[in-house]
Amino acid sequence: MQDKQVTKKLEDAGEEILKQIDKGENPNYELPIRNLNNIFFDEKSKTIKLGDKTSSRQFLNVAHSRKFMQTMLVAAGLKKVIKEQATTSIRDLFYNMKHTIEGTDENTFDTQDESDPLIEDLEASLNVLREELHLIATPKGLVAGEVKIKEAGGSVIDVSKMGSSGWAVPSNVEPEKIEIKEVDADYVLFIEKYATWNRFNEDQFWKKGKCILLTGKGQPARAERRFAQRLAKEQGLPIYALCDADPWGYYIYSVIKQGSISLSYSEEKLANPDTKFIGLTTQDAAEFKIPKDAQIKLNKEDLKRLAEMKDYSWFKKKEWQKEFDYMKEKGFKMELEALSAKSIRFITETYLPKKIQTKDFLP
Amino acid sequence: MQDKQVTKKLEDAGEEILKQIDKGENPNYELPIRNLNNIFFDEKSKTIKLGDKTSSRQFLNVAHSRKFMQTMLVAAGLKKVIKEQATTSIRDLFYNMKHTIEGTDENTFDTQDESDPLIEDLEASLNVLREELHLIATPKGLVAGEVKIKEAGGSVIDVSKMGSSGWAVPSNVEPEKIEIKEVDADYVLFIEKYATWNRFNEDQFWKKGKCILLTGKGQPARAERRFAQRLAKEQGLPIYALCDADPWGYYIYSVIKQGSISLSYSEEKLANPDTKFIGLTTQDAAEFKIPKDAQIKLNKEDLKRLAEMKDYSWFKKKEWQKEFDYMKEKGFKMELEALSAKSIRFITETYLPKKIQTKDFLP
Repeated sequence: MQDKQVTKKLEDAGEEILKQIDKGENPNYELPIRNLNNIFFDEKSKTIKLGDKTSSRQFLNVAHSRKFMQTMLVAAGLKKVIKEQATTSIRDLFYNMKHTIEGTDENTFDTQDESDPLIEDLEASLNVLREELHLIATPKGLVAGEVKIKEAGGSVIDVSKMGSSGWAVPSNVEPEKIEIKEVDADYVLFIEKYATWNRFNEDQFWKKGKCILLTGKGQPARAERRFAQRLAKEQGLPIYALCDADPWGYYIYSVIKQGSISLSYSEEKLANPDTKFIGLTTQDAAEFKIPKDAQIKLNKEDLKRLAEMKDYSWFKKKEWQKEFDYMKEKGFKMELEALSAKSIRFITETYLPKKIQTKDFLP
Repeated sequence: MQDKQVTKKLEDAGEEILKQIDKGENPNYELPIRNLNNIFFDEKSKTIKLGDKTSSRQFLNVAHSRKFMQTMLVAAGLKKVIKEQATTSIRDLFYNMKHTIEGTDENTFDTQDESDPLIEDLEASLNVLREELHLIATPKGLVAGEVKIKEAGGSVIDVSKMGSSGWAVPSNVEPEKIEIKEVDADYVLFIEKYATWNRFNEDQFWKKGKCILLTGKGQPARAERRFAQRLAKEQGLPIYALCDADPWGYYIYSVIKQGSISLSYSEEKLANPDTKFIGLTTQDAAEFKIPKDAQIKLNKEDLKRLAEMKDYSWFKKKEWQKEFDYMKEKGFKMELEALSAKSIRFITETYLPKKIQTKDFLP
């Protein structure tokens, strides 16, 4: 979405309030409810989504008026940031909006806990992405492979020439900012861990395997997920997630695939419902003869998470239920590094090629 | 240092042990002591350093024999990694070395807590960098500015063309791997926070200000500090640190400048003793009329850290003592984002140019 359109959405919201004031009404702003009661797994888009329940924030209501004032300040602050053609962090925005109201001891905002949820309220109510509001989160992602990137007003970056560090995913990868071109790859390998990504990059697996290597260094940030979605949608590339064989690794996969509850209002633009899980699974231990010493005993927390995940509607497929049962029965988990117990390059030379060849994925 | 030299160091250490065995002696390995009692601030190099106290690890000593065996395994594991021309994480190395000793129930290593300190022992005793042992840590750093990078076996990367994401600092920036060329800058701005780095990059401050923008996203990793040191030593660039005006920000500055206790044995190759602190200071609040709302009250932990830092020999200069006293007296701290209370671009358009122009640094 272009700056002009986003600015108009912000202005329209403000004008609606002005009209209410002109008519002598109690100014109020309608917002989607963002809690668990209004979140569902949408079978059509196959992503986590926000429902259509809303609540009204009213100025002439003692319980609402401070928040109402703050919501208006955030909307005005965002309009200013877009107008200045700057992008900024939610922390900078908080400081920029914080001041003592003249003639009082009252601050517009006391802590950032007050402004952050209101930004999310506006993202959800206006149906815009945080990046479209010129707000940035710290990106962590790295990319390697045959792809060229053209940044608005900048040069073309040949990611295949970026060497050991790869191309750093910027905080804003919206089409207005980043153009993805000349992709020569058959799939995207979305890797949980930096060390594993480094192994694949160092072995130039992206060349032999004809793929794009992407890591979010743990739980991926928005930018990495959005970039993967664009590769999938624009270039038709399937996405394979390579994570630890533990509840946390499976959760990261789940966020890559159908999104997270906390970002439910943006998941249609961030999630990748066709993602497949290429590994690691506990069933791989037998299949690839991974030494028993590389297995880690499940702890109480793991077992609790495992039971929860078994119940999630998006994990109901029989292949996942089988993996959960197997993990519980055998009582162990494994990290990607466990494959190094075989040999340092086992993961790039044997494990992944075999998984791809035999199409051994979880859905 | 080249792979050949590092391998020779590892082999020499092994051969020394073999000689002892041949002579019927109790095999033992001499190691620098790596605790607070053997760490000092070296007035000559102006960095934190490891002293010359050593201890002996003996095979025929029940309290040492397991560790002795493990030390030998780590040395052999490192030699193998170098021979395979791979770089790997300390976690991968742990899994690679972990196995059950034949005919027993005993594992070579049970947890990574056992192998990590032994890697550090070898780094210290052989006087090699972790990177020279082909081990990687996860890098976090980003660079923007007029500098070209040539990676061994790779292409030349023009960092000034890298756009909003900058060039990601790779985990290994040793001269054998990374060549720094065609630098056109007057200084390095080492920025604590990603959001601030992004502000400077977006405003193309590196062009106007003729500087290299570097961030480690919080406490910088080894690679960022080593890269800064190479820019300082090879290109003669002064380094200015831009951090929060709080004990944690001052500590990050201190690590950039004279190093950390935990990496004392490598600080000569990581620290930058000539670094100056360009801000933020609590004294800036009055100087730049930063709104009072942007100040944060010091808590107990802050006051404790402040008292500790006031006592460090490397913070004894009168300018720092004055800043510590001022902070304590006024009772507040500030983040870099506090400058956004003035305006979003205050930091790039007013604050930093004035600091540079008036040479308003802390030593």
